[in-house]
Amino acid sequence: MPTAQTLEEVPGTARPGGRSARVRAAVHRAVEELLAELPPDALSVPLIAARAGVHPTTVYRRWPTLGDLLAAVAASRFSGDLVTPDTGTLRGDLETWVSDVATDLADPDALAVMRAAVAAGTQGGCACVADRHAQLAAMLEREQGRGGSAPGLEAAVDSLLAPLYYRAIFTEAAAPPDWARERVDALLGARS
Amino acid sequence: MPTAQTLEEVPGTARPGGRSARVRAAVHRAVEELLAELPPDALSVPLIAARAGVHPTTVYRRWPTLGDLLAAVAASRFSGDLVTPDTGTLRGDLETWVSDVATDLADPDALAVMRAAVAAGTQGGCACVADRHAQLAAMLEREQGRGGSAPGLEAAVDSLLAPLYYRAIFTEAAAPPDWARERVDALLGARS
Repeated sequence: MPTAQTLEEVPGTARPGGRSARVRAAVHRAVEELLAELPPDALSVPLIAARAGVHPTTVYRRWPTLGDLLAAVAASRFSGDLVTPDTGTLRGDLETWVSDVATDLADPDALAVMRAAVAAGTQGGCACVADRHAQLAAMLEREQGRGGSAPGLEAAVDSLLAPLYYRAIFTEAAAPPDWARERVDALLGARS
Repeated sequence: MPTAQTLEEVPGTARPGGRSARVRAAVHRAVEELLAELPPDALSVPLIAARAGVHPTTVYRRWPTLGDLLAAVAASRFSGDLVTPDTGTLRGDLETWVSDVATDLADPDALAVMRAAVAAGTQGGCACVADRHAQLAAMLEREQGRGGSAPGLEAAVDSLLAPLYYRAIFTEAAAPPDWARERVDALLGARS
């Protein structure tokens, strides 16, 4: 694990962009590690800084509050990690995507990040959903580009993403085996 | 506001059950007040005890961890506050209920309690949903008792409750005016 010396006291060993990226990576990793080990209310900037091997002021300079930092970690953890499916049909895309998101949400460390970000309650919603909305929008638009008809983004979020996140955060009830197919049927209408 | 003296140092002024209920009410109220004023990560048992006018050991004796206390406050806040509708039809019941839950979730103080309870991540899910599931089950069972057909509880939770809670916690996007009717149509099939 990097120490304060590693990241803070070796001047001139890398371009500023390189050091900045290393600090960011170390702080994000420290947050994820600590959330996997401790109850979320035990987290603090000094604790995170110590684990990351940086001074607390380095953290505060970039993320003024713990909530800002948690939102950044959640945005990073929940974006770019899933490939938007391209199966040739909207139904196939959505079923695959629902299964992929469900698998992603089965990771307890990811859930710990999400819970902490939810608690921080950043204005405008949780940073952990922006990329998911963008993926849904992309699949719906692709179908329209093919000349097919597609439901609106809001209906797709309400029908598919909302129950996935609700189950993960509020009930801990895993989705049953046929769940992805049934939810997509409910959104698009049963297959003919 | 009650002080430490009021609740802790006037022995024999009430039956034990009475004092116990007063301590519980004071501590619950202190949690709700502090969550309305402070970021959730600022909450601590000593702070809550001071606001409630009790000694921290009194809090720890009843709620061993802050997470236990937050779960109790959430269970209390999100139960018994809504009357289960009885309009004569399942469709009417569900539409009224969805609107009532949406109105309840528009209270920022209620959301603060929910966010804090979610962050505490009590095993087995958030205490803020048990009463909602019971209400949905009661409406579905009443329809079956009338000889009508009703969807399963899981489908009703996924279609109605999940997007309400998802919107409140993850996106801060208020439901549009016709939303309750459209969601119930999606669950029950469009009205004939």
